[in-house]
Amino acid sequence: MTSSPLGLHRVREPEPGAPDTGGLKTAAPSPGEPRPGEPRPGERGSGGAVLPQAAWRLDPDPRIQPDEVRVGVERLNLDAASFRQIRESTGGAPDAMRAAVLGIIGARGKMHNPVTGSGGMLTGVVAEAGPRSPLGLHAGMRIATLVSLSLTPLAITDGLAQWDGQSEQIPCTGHAILFARSIAVPLPDDLPMPLALAVFDVCGAPALTQRVVSACRAGRRFGGAPAGSRGPVVAILGAAGKSGSLSAAAARAAGAAAVIGVVPTGAEAALLHESGLADAVVRADARDPVGLADAVAGAGGPADVTVVCVDVPGCEGGAILATAPGGTVIFFSMATSFSAAALGAEGMAADVTMLIGNGYAPGHAELALDLIRRHEPLRALFERRVFHQRADFVAHIAENSAHSGGPGRGRGEAGRGEAGRGEAGREGPGSGGPGAAAGTEAGV
Amino acid sequence: MTSSPLGLHRVREPEPGAPDTGGLKTAAPSPGEPRPGEPRPGERGSGGAVLPQAAWRLDPDPRIQPDEVRVGVERLNLDAASFRQIRESTGGAPDAMRAAVLGIIGARGKMHNPVTGSGGMLTGVVAEAGPRSPLGLHAGMRIATLVSLSLTPLAITDGLAQWDGQSEQIPCTGHAILFARSIAVPLPDDLPMPLALAVFDVCGAPALTQRVVSACRAGRRFGGAPAGSRGPVVAILGAAGKSGSLSAAAARAAGAAAVIGVVPTGAEAALLHESGLADAVVRADARDPVGLADAVAGAGGPADVTVVCVDVPGCEGGAILATAPGGTVIFFSMATSFSAAALGAEGMAADVTMLIGNGYAPGHAELALDLIRRHEPLRALFERRVFHQRADFVAHIAENSAHSGGPGRGRGEAGRGEAGRGEAGREGPGSGGPGAAAGTEAGV
Repeated sequence: MTSSPLGLHRVREPEPGAPDTGGLKTAAPSPGEPRPGEPRPGERGSGGAVLPQAAWRLDPDPRIQPDEVRVGVERLNLDAASFRQIRESTGGAPDAMRAAVLGIIGARGKMHNPVTGSGGMLTGVVAEAGPRSPLGLHAGMRIATLVSLSLTPLAITDGLAQWDGQSEQIPCTGHAILFARSIAVPLPDDLPMPLALAVFDVCGAPALTQRVVSACRAGRRFGGAPAGSRGPVVAILGAAGKSGSLSAAAARAAGAAAVIGVVPTGAEAALLHESGLADAVVRADARDPVGLADAVAGAGGPADVTVVCVDVPGCEGGAILATAPGGTVIFFSMATSFSAAALGAEGMAADVTMLIGNGYAPGHAELALDLIRRHEPLRALFERRVFHQRADFVAHIAENSAHSGGPGRGRGEAGRGEAGRGEAGREGPGSGGPGAAAGTEAGV
Repeated sequence: MTSSPLGLHRVREPEPGAPDTGGLKTAAPSPGEPRPGEPRPGERGSGGAVLPQAAWRLDPDPRIQPDEVRVGVERLNLDAASFRQIRESTGGAPDAMRAAVLGIIGARGKMHNPVTGSGGMLTGVVAEAGPRSPLGLHAGMRIATLVSLSLTPLAITDGLAQWDGQSEQIPCTGHAILFARSIAVPLPDDLPMPLALAVFDVCGAPALTQRVVSACRAGRRFGGAPAGSRGPVVAILGAAGKSGSLSAAAARAAGAAAVIGVVPTGAEAALLHESGLADAVVRADARDPVGLADAVAGAGGPADVTVVCVDVPGCEGGAILATAPGGTVIFFSMATSFSAAALGAEGMAADVTMLIGNGYAPGHAELALDLIRRHEPLRALFERRVFHQRADFVAHIAENSAHSGGPGRGRGEAGRGEAGRGEAGREGPGSGGPGAAAGTEAGV
């Protein structure tokens, strides 16, 4: 077979060029479920090759092409929707759940839930890296994949015997194949795995924020007048969240003149203020266009760059209205409506450049880890987000609160105190375990 | 009242700051219909002011603020969805249709169909322009509004007596109010109105294309290496359509190194080739990522800038894959899925900048009209799109085909031959009339 950087050579069903209905299916969908053999609209045109994500079945042959990498799998992180569907459709019995996951992987050559259409990600150790792989990996490296399991060839060899079905984290043995255009990053030694995975999950946001702020500072942008050497005023909607706090740190590192952090509640405002990540902290409902624009204007705006990290629908109009003419809005929220943004800007005669947040940029994971390492208050804020659902973490806070200087600091310390437990926890966390928070939001 | 450039001072229901459920409604929605008094999520946060589009009722008082403009209305162009809903809900009797439209305008102070949520646009003559209006209009100018009727204060004084209910074009008498941030453009004397309206409908596309191509040429862009002084290679998906052909002309005018026109059929390829708007013309299904990328690569790609003007879902992956690393994708199609674009780029590790096509940019209408005037083949291609649904135009083609040199040229000539009829037609076209094609696609 001829190797393709996108993995086209691993596609087995449908065959490239085969009719949409062709190919023997190894599993029949139930009525009402998607017809997995037929790619959804947009994934395949007439007669074209099918991308691995659109394919029904991939070939997980462990023999690699010169530009591929084989990974010894240690753990699958199912996305939350897939885990829930499997648990509900099987009634939650561990044997039945193991059989369901093994059935999907056996039939499709990938952990691509045919009902939810989603996958997840995996961690493991590089077993063999082809000489022409551009991923910079070598045997023995412990890595996480940042592309979805729905396009990653996978085989399981231990029958999932180590999985009790209680968590979307599946400890297991097997192998996966990475293509030349896959994304995989080494797991850092100095950070707990749940923290690293949560950082990887949102690392596209600080990367693009840094790029846009740097471009503005250098006078390079598509619209409006060049900003000259003065850095832009940057507003971050949802600045106390994971992607928001990282983006705030990235904006400052890239030379923003000022960072305005927008949060919905007084509690988040206190945390953000404590962190020092923003020059100004304002409370506003991002779904209220006029209120948001007024709040940002009152804190040093309008913004030259507005970064939308609020994962609720309806923030398009406010983001546009809070942005100065010639400015840029970066939409990272997956709740963004394309048409609401396009028509909203037109309806308000707003001359703004609007970017769809791309989850990928070269070096994005390293940039985000570096921000976390260098900014203690960012790490504290971030860890609070990652670990705050753990019951023992709450207990830990209560225990520590008498000794800490304030809620932000106390929580930060507690979060860092979880590091050892986080690492250990990955060997067998419960459904509320440290990986769960990351897994829930890492759904791909 | 204090004037607001967005028209907040014209909002009557709900009152700014009033509870969502407050305010006497002058029309009760049927069960299952939207609850018009309650703005949709995203249009209003708790306690904030409501934008005119989100408001239930506006005040169409003819007395203007210093930054407002009053327009004597000559014609409403309902958007296609609204017209269809009104015709179907009334059974299509002219009296009932007139009553329905008058009822909406009377109750809401704007032609904002509460069932479809849509409006349309209007043409008329400026009656009075306030001294502080920034729109550059003066009394006596014949204009078209480029903001939706769903946010434009409106009153009708002739009972719609001139309207027979057969077309979304409603000849009428009344007045409308434009705010400081409204968009209105003079109707050109030298172009037939249906052509001008069709150009206005898509004029955001060539404006943003020109801006991005110019920025790339000057080495100004967010990602990748500066392109230096060489112009970018530009691929236009749907290059034979209205927004596509204008964008192709704009790309070339801005200094593109090459324009690759992508079309779905042999007939469109022949038309585009005949027009000379593209340096290379390729046939490909934009929903087939690999096929599209291969076709663009074979025609001089990958593209530095890819412009998506194909109004079908599922073109995100192909557009991303056809674009070089560090390049830019401009999504104009309203069928674009935000999540498909964001996740598609991440899944293919594609380092591309993705723009949401903004329908507004300063000077966009003038730029597009200028392109149409200067490029005879563009005008020919465009007119064919505008007029091709007219039965008499088809007859005209048949009549002329014996005299013309080829299908493209013949159609172009026939299209221009329609110009006079188009002007006349606006006084009372049938539902298949010249304005219909423009009106259908102008739905706002």
